[in-house]
Formats: sequence, structure tokens, C-alpha cells
Amino acid sequence: MSEQQTVWVNLGERSYDIEIGSGNLAQTGPFVAGLRRLTHAIVVTDVNVEDPHAAAVADSLAAAGAEVDVMVVDSGEGAKSIDMAGELWQRLLEAGADRKSIVCAVGGGVVGDLAGFVAATFARGIPFVQVPTTLLAQVDSSVGGKVGVNLPGAKNMVGSFWQPLGVLIDTETLSTLPEREYRAGLGEVVKYGVILDAPFFDYLEKNVDAINARQPEVLRHVIARCCRLKADVVERDERETTGLRAVLNYGHTFCHAIEAVAGYGEYLHGEAVAIGMICASRLAESLERVDSDFTARQAGLLQQLGLSTATPDLDRDLLLAAMGRDKKVEHGKLRFVLPSQMGHVELVGDVPPELARAAFA
Amino acid sequence: MSEQQTVWVNLGERSYDIEIGSGNLAQTGPFVAGLRRLTHAIVVTDVNVEDPHAAAVADSLAAAGAEVDVMVVDSGEGAKSIDMAGELWQRLLEAGADRKSIVCAVGGGVVGDLAGFVAATFARGIPFVQVPTTLLAQVDSSVGGKVGVNLPGAKNMVGSFWQPLGVLIDTETLSTLPEREYRAGLGEVVKYGVILDAPFFDYLEKNVDAINARQPEVLRHVIARCCRLKADVVERDERETTGLRAVLNYGHTFCHAIEAVAGYGEYLHGEAVAIGMICASRLAESLERVDSDFTARQAGLLQQLGLSTATPDLDRDLLLAAMGRDKKVEHGKLRFVLPSQMGHVELVGDVPPELARAAFA
Repeated sequence: MSEQQTVWVNLGERSYDIEIGSGNLAQTGPFVAGLRRLTHAIVVTDVNVEDPHAAAVADSLAAAGAEVDVMVVDSGEGAKSIDMAGELWQRLLEAGADRKSIVCAVGGGVVGDLAGFVAATFARGIPFVQVPTTLLAQVDSSVGGKVGVNLPGAKNMVGSFWQPLGVLIDTETLSTLPEREYRAGLGEVVKYGVILDAPFFDYLEKNVDAINARQPEVLRHVIARCCRLKADVVERDERETTGLRAVLNYGHTFCHAIEAVAGYGEYLHGEAVAIGMICASRLAESLERVDSDFTARQAGLLQQLGLSTATPDLDRDLLLAAMGRDKKVEHGKLRFVLPSQMGHVELVGDVPPELARAAFA
Repeated sequence: MSEQQTVWVNLGERSYDIEIGSGNLAQTGPFVAGLRRLTHAIVVTDVNVEDPHAAAVADSLAAAGAEVDVMVVDSGEGAKSIDMAGELWQRLLEAGADRKSIVCAVGGGVVGDLAGFVAATFARGIPFVQVPTTLLAQVDSSVGGKVGVNLPGAKNMVGSFWQPLGVLIDTETLSTLPEREYRAGLGEVVKYGVILDAPFFDYLEKNVDAINARQPEVLRHVIARCCRLKADVVERDERETTGLRAVLNYGHTFCHAIEAVAGYGEYLHGEAVAIGMICASRLAESLERVDSDFTARQAGLLQQLGLSTATPDLDRDLLLAAMGRDKKVEHGKLRFVLPSQMGHVELVGDVPPELARAAFA
């Protein structure tokens, strides 16, 4: 097995490790057994990930001595529902789960959010472990403890903050990830460089070919760095109370508007983030916070990583109206997370709507 | 307004006050406004409590400047369901609730558990305040942070630990409480004396007439003492991890068996607790931990407070089998919380089933 990297997320008694390796999926059993006495594990996964990834995890947990139940849900955002949570709670009850059982989520963000919420609320909270198998989930959902399901018309509206016991990431799960999903994950990766880490942005620029080739060594570094950067933010604002966590939303106000107006599912989240970052950067230009080279540099990297940065042909009035419904709006004033230099962003209030509209370009 | 008593529940950043008065329901607005900026309050109540108690609370919150939504659920254990939680989540969304809104639960344990769970999970957790209006809820549910709903066949199986911002108790809400519900609450009151506080047990014996007459001054003292005693336990075992919280389950293994075999709803919880305590005390006798006077003293007080202490005519084999399904069973061995002297109980393992069976008498 290749060299591993470990990111420690420091949240007091809720601290945990993220283990990042290549070909380490079969080590899930020993990894979990090292965290907590392992007698009963419930693997939650979706139909796309069940074979071979979830099966490998289940085998490894069984080999480590656990009784293992595997629960398979539909793939896609539709599985993040109260109905599906209700079904899983009932199945946990039937499987005899209790606070000594461990839920192990194997899949993308949907599986992690759903399984995490079910773990957070079954018997008032049972331990869970994340094994994210998409790039987006590896660099985003595996840090922060946000779990939950959607209400009709309102994403992530029901949920908890529930930290995992540990996270295990195997970059080999990315080798079979569909091209489009892989590239979408890279949108969030670039975001971390822009908002928090100029040298990391440089590193991404210098390693475009290796990243596009999904080279394990480079992937391990990229994922570990993103997890570390997100952990630095989450450690200082675990429950989203200080406002600090807002920096993670760079590009997201534009992104959410594009997703909503295009219709959910039309764009993958990371694809819309890439476009949204460029819109936000243009807005920062018009507020004279950055110059046009700054925007061009981001667009160049995103395009080299196979992401489009052009705003789609959607009605600008609808996009502006959708931004007005964003969570960051207060008393009708638009607020944006905007860069001032590479590796640094700030929350900027009272942005004139006409500038925001123009930033869609 | 009469003299108030305040119990401080010390849980670090989750600490809160319990205000206990008589005729203070109309002070809910200023009380809540003193805890958090009050702009939007959602009063959750049931059809029995809506008028006049919840209406008085809503008026008081509105007078303190809040926009107020009132959500009324069915009365009874059936309302503690995932379906009802789903309906409330949806209604909170439609009411525009966010993390600046405050959920105010006005009612008995069912309303508090349901509304608390909905608050714990809406938008990953919004603040809530409890205004318990039954004696059982005032001395039990208002301390401890346990919130949740039932699964079919499994009480409280889905939930969270979610501490309130504060608790306001008005003993006048007890003046209209049905006799049987009031007496059931006294079962839990007596329990606190037996498990934790011999002088409090003496006090109850000396004040039987005042308690039966629901005298406000005595009620304030009784409720404050029970809240303090429970808080002492919860402060040392907030999330039920050290085992200390188990002492609160004195009588409950027998109680749960009686409730299950008689059929849920046949006995009020406090009624079954009273019988269960006497069974547990008899078991302690047979293990030579206490003498028969000890049991007789508890039975005497419970009877003076209008509670039956006789085991109902239920099949003893079914009762014993039901105890085998209790959460405190480990590897088929029966464990009980048993007294050794007034004000002190211990968790006793490895109890022979025939002694447990005989203790039903």
C-alpha cells in the first residue's frame, strides 16, 4: 500500500482523523476497529457504489470481526429525503442497532449526508464513519459535520451537526468516477486555493496534467490540503455561528442562482461553483478589489481542468431574483464572499443589485 | 406575582435557567426576550393546551415584540411520530423560520419531545424554549435535553440531545390538570426522593395534604427540588455515556414491562413508575439490600398521594419476558437500579430472573 496522509480535525472531544491513501479501502475494518470497539457495522451506500466499493468495505469490516448489515439506497439527490431517512431508521431498528453499532457511509455527498443524519438521530445519536468515494465528497462533505436531508423545495433544511468518528479516503475510488463528476469536484478544489491558499493555487497550476490523469500521489496531496484548509475554518466555527464559515461559500451565491434557474440537476454542483467563482471574481473587479488578470488566472486554471466558466444562457432577471432568496441576504441587501488577493476573501455587504447582475456577464 | 425559584442547569455553553413561579405564564415574552433577541417565535402546542395556556404564551411573546406562529398538534403519544415531525418541518419552512427564530413548546412531554426534536433538526438546529404544563413534564422532561419521536413499536428511538435556551414553569397550569395526570406526575416526584435525597422524601411525607391540594408554594419547592436533583445527574452525564444517568431509571425496568404487557396507554407512565418502584424495592429486599419497612414507607407515601402500588393482574411470564428486552439487559443478564438506603441507589447486575419475577408479587 502507498504512503498515507492523515489530516487531524481538531474539535475537542469531537476530534477525528481523515486517512487519505490509495488502495486502502480494504483497510476500513482495521481503521474503524482502531477508533471504537467494532461489533456491529451498518454500511449505507447507493446502487452505483455498492459494487465494488461498498462490498469491499463490508468485507473488510466483517474480517475485522463485525457483524455487518448493508443498506442500499437509490442514487441521486432524491434519496436525501425524510422518507428515505424514515426507511433507514426502521431498518436500523430491525437490524438491532444501538449506540454500540457504527454506521459507515460509503458513497458521495448524498449518501454521507443521509447516513450521517440517520446516525445523528437514531437512539439520539450513534457513531458514524465516512468513506467518501467522489472527489467532491472527499474534499467537501468529509469535513464539517453537516448532515441532513432535503425538504421539498429546500435543500439541507432538516439536519444536524454530527462529526464522524473518522474518515477514510481511497483515491482509487476516483479511478472509476465518471469524467464529469471528477471535473466537478475539481471546481471545489480550485475554490480552496482562491479563498485560503495562494501557494496551493500555484501547485494546482503546475500539476494540471497529473491532476487530469488522476495521479494517486498528486490526488493524495490535493485532497489532504483541501481537507486541512476546510478543517482550519470549521475548527474556528464548528456550528456556523461566527460567520467565518461563510468564506467557504465563495462563488456559491451565483452558483445557487444558476442551479435554481437552470433547474436542479442540470448542472453538477461543482460545475456551477466554477461558473459562480468567475462571476464573483468579476463582481470583485467591478468593486475594484481585484484586476482582470486575477479573474483570467482562475478561469484559465478551471478551463485547463476541463471546466466551463461561461455563464449559461439563462434569463438575467431570473438569476438576480434567485440571488435575492439566498441565505446571505439580510434586509434585501445582497452580500457576497469576494476576493481581494489570491488566498484571501471577505464578506462584502450592501452590493448594488445592478453590479451583481452585470457580473453574470 | 408570587416569589419565583430559579434552577440553573450547568452544561457549559449549553447552560440554562429553569424559572419556576405561580401565575408567571404571561411573563414568557420578557423571559424569552432576556435569553435571545426575540423577533420570530413558533409556539408548538396540542389541542388540549392551546386554550388558554398556549394562547397566553403567544400573547406574551407578541407583546414582547415577536412575530408569532402557533402550530397545534394532536394530543397524545401518537403525535410523537416522524409524520408529525415532517409536517412541522414543512410548516416551519412555510413560516420562514430560520436560526433567528425560537421554538416555544407549550404542553406536556409529548409536545416538548416533538417540538424539541423539530427545533434540534430544522436548519441543523434552532433555539427552543420549554413551557411544560404537566407535573411530569415539569419535573422530568424540562431537564436533560432528550428530545425525539417514536418509531412504530420503539419509543423515543429517533431523537437528539438538544438543550433548551430556558424553561419557564407556571404551577398554575397544574390547577386545571386532570386528577389522574397530576397523581401520575407525583410518582416521579417520589422517585427523586428515594434515589437521591432522603430529606426531600421526609419533606414529601410531611406535606402530603398541601401536595394533594396543589398548594402553589409547596409545588414550587417540589418542582425546583426535582429539577435540581435531575440537573445534578445530567450535568455529570449529559449524553448518557458514563452510566450515571441510569439512576434516574429506578423502578423503570418493572415499569416498562408493565406498560408493554398491559398495552401502552393503559397506565400513565407515572402510575407504572409508582408500581415499578415498589417492585424494585421488593427485589432489593430479597437481595438483602433493604428491609421490608423501607418498601412499606415508599408504598405508604405513594398511596397517600393517591397512587396504587399493587402489581396489576398481568401474566408474570409475559412481564419477565418483557424485562428481558429492556435496554439495561446485557448478554441476557438482568440489571436493575436498586436502593440500599433512602436517597441512594446503585446499578446491580446479574440478578437471577426468578427473583425479578417474584418481585412483581
